[in-house]
Order: sequence, then C-alpha cells, then structure tokens
Amino acid sequence: MIPPREAVGQRSETVRRANLSAILRELHVRGPLSRSDLVALTGLTRSAIRGLIGELVAGALVREERNEPAGTPGRPSPLARPDAEATLVLAIEINVDSLAAAAVGLGGIVHELVRVDRPRAHLSLDEIVSDVVDLVAPMRSRLPLEETLVGVGVAVAGVVRRTDGLVRLAPNLGWQDAPLGSRLSAALGLAAPLHVANESDLGGLAEHRRGVAVGVDAMLYVMGEVGVGGNLVVDGQPVVGAAGYAGEIGHLPVNPAGGRCGCGSFGCWETEIGERAMLVHAGRPAAGGREAVARLLEAAAAGEPEALAGLAHVGNWLGIGLAGLINVLNPSLVVLGGLFERIHPFVADQLADVIERRALPASRELVAIVPGTMGVDGPLLGAAEHAFEPVLADPAARLAVIRARRPALASA
Amino acid sequence: MIPPREAVGQRSETVRRANLSAILRELHVRGPLSRSDLVALTGLTRSAIRGLIGELVAGALVREERNEPAGTPGRPSPLARPDAEATLVLAIEINVDSLAAAAVGLGGIVHELVRVDRPRAHLSLDEIVSDVVDLVAPMRSRLPLEETLVGVGVAVAGVVRRTDGLVRLAPNLGWQDAPLGSRLSAALGLAAPLHVANESDLGGLAEHRRGVAVGVDAMLYVMGEVGVGGNLVVDGQPVVGAAGYAGEIGHLPVNPAGGRCGCGSFGCWETEIGERAMLVHAGRPAAGGREAVARLLEAAAAGEPEALAGLAHVGNWLGIGLAGLINVLNPSLVVLGGLFERIHPFVADQLADVIERRALPASRELVAIVPGTMGVDGPLLGAAEHAFEPVLADPAARLAVIRARRPALASA
Repeated sequence: MIPPREAVGQRSETVRRANLSAILRELHVRGPLSRSDLVALTGLTRSAIRGLIGELVAGALVREERNEPAGTPGRPSPLARPDAEATLVLAIEINVDSLAAAAVGLGGIVHELVRVDRPRAHLSLDEIVSDVVDLVAPMRSRLPLEETLVGVGVAVAGVVRRTDGLVRLAPNLGWQDAPLGSRLSAALGLAAPLHVANESDLGGLAEHRRGVAVGVDAMLYVMGEVGVGGNLVVDGQPVVGAAGYAGEIGHLPVNPAGGRCGCGSFGCWETEIGERAMLVHAGRPAAGGREAVARLLEAAAAGEPEALAGLAHVGNWLGIGLAGLINVLNPSLVVLGGLFERIHPFVADQLADVIERRALPASRELVAIVPGTMGVDGPLLGAAEHAFEPVLADPAARLAVIRARRPALASA
Repeated sequence: MIPPREAVGQRSETVRRANLSAILRELHVRGPLSRSDLVALTGLTRSAIRGLIGELVAGALVREERNEPAGTPGRPSPLARPDAEATLVLAIEINVDSLAAAAVGLGGIVHELVRVDRPRAHLSLDEIVSDVVDLVAPMRSRLPLEETLVGVGVAVAGVVRRTDGLVRLAPNLGWQDAPLGSRLSAALGLAAPLHVANESDLGGLAEHRRGVAVGVDAMLYVMGEVGVGGNLVVDGQPVVGAAGYAGEIGHLPVNPAGGRCGCGSFGCWETEIGERAMLVHAGRPAAGGREAVARLLEAAAAGEPEALAGLAHVGNWLGIGLAGLINVLNPSLVVLGGLFERIHPFVADQLADVIERRALPASRELVAIVPGTMGVDGPLLGAAEHAFEPVLADPAARLAVIRARRPALASA
C-alpha cells in the first residue's frame, strides 16, 4: 500500500490555523488592510475575520487601529497592520565580498541594516561565525530580541542542506561540508530557530515577495556574481528540491569545450557567464574582483571595445542558457539579479535576439525578461522572508508562545 | 495594491469540497479502502467519513460493499471502492508511430485498450482526427458513455497549449499551430470536456500516479522517442508552466557545435540523445524508425561494436544532460521512459559514471535513476489520469450533475 503522507482531510482546527495563516500572510505581504479588504481577499465572513484578527492581536502579530474615514458615511472599518515592533527576525548574509545583517519586522519593515566589505580571502567557518556574531551584537543590544525574535535567516553563497544548514559546497568561500547552521546557532545563542539557505534562492524569494515578481506563478530568477545560481517558482511557490539544492542553474553543462568549473565539472554555465568569464573575455585578469567589474562596466559605458566584448560574451551565453531554461520551465517572468541586474542595460537587446533564435516560440512569446529591483540587499531581505515563513505558515504556534508568556492575555 | 488571487480563506463549503476530493483521490490512487483506512489517511472523524462517502455513493463515484471479516472480532468496516463502471474517461494518444485509445474507469481500471500502428508520414490534422474517431467508434458503441463519461484525455507528441489543446509545434507530426483540441472535440461530439497535453507530460503523470514514482515529491521524467521530452514533479505536483509548455527538456542547448534541431535551434539535447542520433552514431540511416531501433538493440545485445557505439553516444549525452537537470531540480528520482526505458540496461553504468563526474555531489547523492514501468502505454494511461483530474479535484461538481439526472436520489 502507498504510505500515507500528512493527513489530507481538513478538520476545524486545521481550518482555523489555515485561516490565521491566510490573514497574516496577506497583511505581511500587502501591508495594512481593513476588515473589508480581508473579507474580499479571503472570502471569509466579517465575523470570522473579526475573531481571527482578535487572536492575531492577542498574539502580538497584528495591531488594529482606527481607520481615518475618507469622507465616506458609516462606521470606518478598523485597519489591521502587521506588528513590526513586536515580531522580528534577524537576517544575515555571508557572501564572497561582504557580510551583512538586518533586523526586520513583520510586514518587511527594515529596522536596522548593516553591511561590511570583506576581502575575498578564504576564511574558515570559525572566523566567519565570529565576524557575524560581532556584526549583530550592536543590534542585539538595541532591540528587545528576547521577546520579539521569531527567527534567524541566513543567506550564504553555497549549496545548503535545508534541514540543518550544512553547507555542502561553497567553492568561492573555500568551504566543503561546513556546519554553518549548527555553529552559527550555537555562537549566537538565540532561542529562535535559525534557517540557512542559498543566497540565490533567497534573492529570488525577495524578488517574489517584495520585488518585481510579486504574484507571479511561474518565475525563473538568475543571479550571478562570482558564482551563478538561481531560484525557480512553480505554482507560486519556491522550488527547493529533495533537500534544498534545487536552483543550481550555474551548473548546467552548456559547453563540452568549456573550462573547468569550481564544482569539479567543466563547461558549466557559470564558466561562461560568471564574473571571471566576463573579465577574461574583456581582456582583464580573472581575479580582479568587484572593483574590476565596476571599472569594466564604466569602460563599457564609455564604449571600450574590449569591455563590450566581455559583456557580449556573457550576453550570448546568458541568452543560450536562458533559452534552455525557458523551454524547460515555461516561466512567465525571468528576473536577472546581482551581476546580471547590473549588466542588463548592456545585454538586453542581445538576450532578446539569442532567445528569439534559440527558445521554442510557444514559451518565449509568453516570457518577459527583466532586471531585479532589490539590488545588493536582495538575498539579505530574502533571508528575512525565509525566517518569517514558519510564523506565516502557522501563526497559531506563535500565539501559543505569547499566551504562555502573558497569562493575563490567555483569555483575550 | 497586489491583485487578489483566488480567495485564500476556507469556508465550510470549501472544506466539504476539499474533503470529498481528498477521499476520492485516495480511493482512485490506492484502490478499495475501509472507513478505518480513510480515517487514518485523512485525519477526519469516522462520522465525517461516513457522510462524505454517502455523498460519493449517491454521485455514482464510489460503491460500498461489505468487507469480509478477516477473523477479527467486531462489525467489519464497509469497503469503499471507486466505481469504475459508472465513471469513465476516454484516453487517446497520437504519436509518431501509432494511434491508441482506451476506456478507463475510476480507480485506473482499463476496460478497453486498442493501439494501431501508423506510418511515419506527415498526416494532416483532418486525417488524424478522422482516424481517431474511427478508432474509438467501437468503444462508444459498446460502453454507456452517455451516462458515464466524465472526460477525454489526449496525449500528443507536440508542444500543447493547455487551455484549448492548440498544438503549437509538433515537428515529428509536421504540425504547427494545429487546433487539435477544438477539432477533435467537435468530431467526437461528446459532452465531456476534452483535455490535450504533451505525451511526455502524460508519460510522467502515469509513472507518478501508477508507476515507479508514486508518492515521490521531486521527480524528473525523461522520455525519448524521435523527440525528447520530459515532465517535472515539484512538491508532488506536475509542473505545467505558464501555459502548459514546461518540460521541454529535449530543447536544452547542450552542444554549441551540435546539429540542427527540429525546433529551429541547434545543439539541443534531443539532437544528441534522440532516436536519430542513436541510429547515426551506430552507423545506421537516421530515418530507420522503430524497426531500425529494435534491430539496433538486438545487435547491441549481441555485442556489435557499432550498435554499442550508438548507445554509448546516447548514454554519454544522456548523462551530461541529466547531471545538469539534477543540479537544477534536486530530484529524488529520475525516471527514464520510452526509448530510454528500453536502452537503460545498456547505459545504466555509463550514466552513473557521467553523473558522478558532472553533477554536484550534494544532489547526485540523493537521486536514484530508474527505468519506467509503464512501457509503451504510459502516455495513454497518463491521458486517462489527466482526464480524471477535474473530477478528483472537485467531485462535488460531478455529484450535482448526477443528482440533476436522477432526481430520486436528490435527497439521498
């Protein structure tokens, strides 16, 4: 017999939890809404909305305030807003060039954000963990995280096992099987759960939750820096795969005559469209780093042929790989992040041309290719969204925690 | 403001419909179940199960029968089974080598199945539609389809727009923008809705619903014949993309020095692993067809070096492309269908070797690569599953139809 999965029927308690989740998610993504808005969005009755909002208010997840009447007659519907002061996450990003941290309130309100450059040296896991602890220390002293923190989200430039935050491979950090999740969790000593994920996955999540891809059911996010990664959205949900490794589009084999890749294979897409390939094909040293890329883009803007040749190489191969992924996934939107967000103005026409020649007409006619809108902080803000996810999926669990902490409100 | 999607809250009527669907789906996939089984599988109460089964029985979707007591004390729990006689679909397959049709009852019971070879000539849409009508005529005369038919599913070797069954491209049938759905629907003159989809998508659906991939959350199905296609399963659901075109993995660009592809591009995966490539690399004419493939496999089994070289070429490139897709999707299971199901014994070791060298360890360690189990009828049986889907997703709509037809049961 086929083994049972999670119970598939819906009982009244399941329904209550699902409806709490639906309301909180709408508020988190859309911002303040009136009860009438929520009736329209959820299809629930006004009295059900009132009861559920009452529970969310008692759990410090939502505040209700009088809605200023806009010249319309009748009693104004109170406005519910996510409580950004009472429910917070910490977001952390470990990438090749910098470390960053942010404290973000429910509803996506960024209370604090700090980013520090770091050299592209291979630092040990211990060193990085220590640097991260130092980076978030000032926030911890300023914010009442003991009471308000519901999660810690971590973005890292590597292949991450979702269950425990083990970094299986991060060639550009020099890590293999590095237990980032457990070590960082222990070093921070915070009670809230810590969730590590790949930076491209989280860059995609940020664009899907807060950026250019809000509400898109079928999205492909492609992010390049030194490495190349991506994120797929299917039926409105991010694809994680069997263990969280999905989206490693930088390691599609595109060129049997291509160069050695950091992953151990060769001819991967990353070897043709990553930062190093762009620099080399522009006649620059491969290891020039972020500064060299910035100067290359300036030179390209000034019309330097070598710089333009480097961009053209990347544009051509970016188009070839995108054509393939458009055929595989039939997305309605492709979002270019990181390096590809920055070079988009230079390669947009070329991309369109290559995709016109290489992708199936049925699929390419339906897809728009756009630069992202989140800039350098995309993965960090995606890490915040990732850390909110358990609370959004089941606010009832958080309500129980708050009730236990504040017995006076238990009967509210 | 972000536009509202479908209402996200759950009201009691939504819950009833969802629970009817959950029960019917369990019965359809698993076969006969006792009420106790259904309590365990759904998490619903026994009285809720009793009421919902009563509705499904009144709607001719389920029959209940006495469960033979197996020596255990107490009153035996009645056994519910999908009513394969009262609820049927027609399945039709149009592929390059043959036409096929089947009448399939709820629960996946095949009442009739017929397949006829056809020459690999390009036939017009009119000719194919006429042949299909002739093929299903005997079934229509034998079966009471007026009362029992709930859908018609059609598998076709082409890129299909799901909304209306327009075949955007079918190079191996010689079609472009062929309105198969509307023409076949009119020619058959059946009241039940007709759903057309790509044959690889439906081959994957059959393996996921009835074959080797039942219950798998993250699957990649790869099917080759003349063309190469596939089907992705994410979070247990088939990926269709923005319009139904997802899964065209045969058109991943893998070789910049590769040959012209039927899609208009070049160096697509299909040009390296499709039937023609296999024949050519075995020193045979590309257009030899199914017979030539059968003889090639016999020759390979007898150790003929040229035949083995053709298989080795396909095995190598199959491994390269699979490595990339394993990196992109992190599936737990890869299922090889069609031609790849048949050649699996010859290429299994080579595939494992190439994937070992080319895929990320994190992802390849988690994936099993297996031949399919559905054989030539996979896409046809997948078409039947596809046609059942609307009834499984919302049995309440079917119940309303049956009640209107049989007013005596309206109060049952």
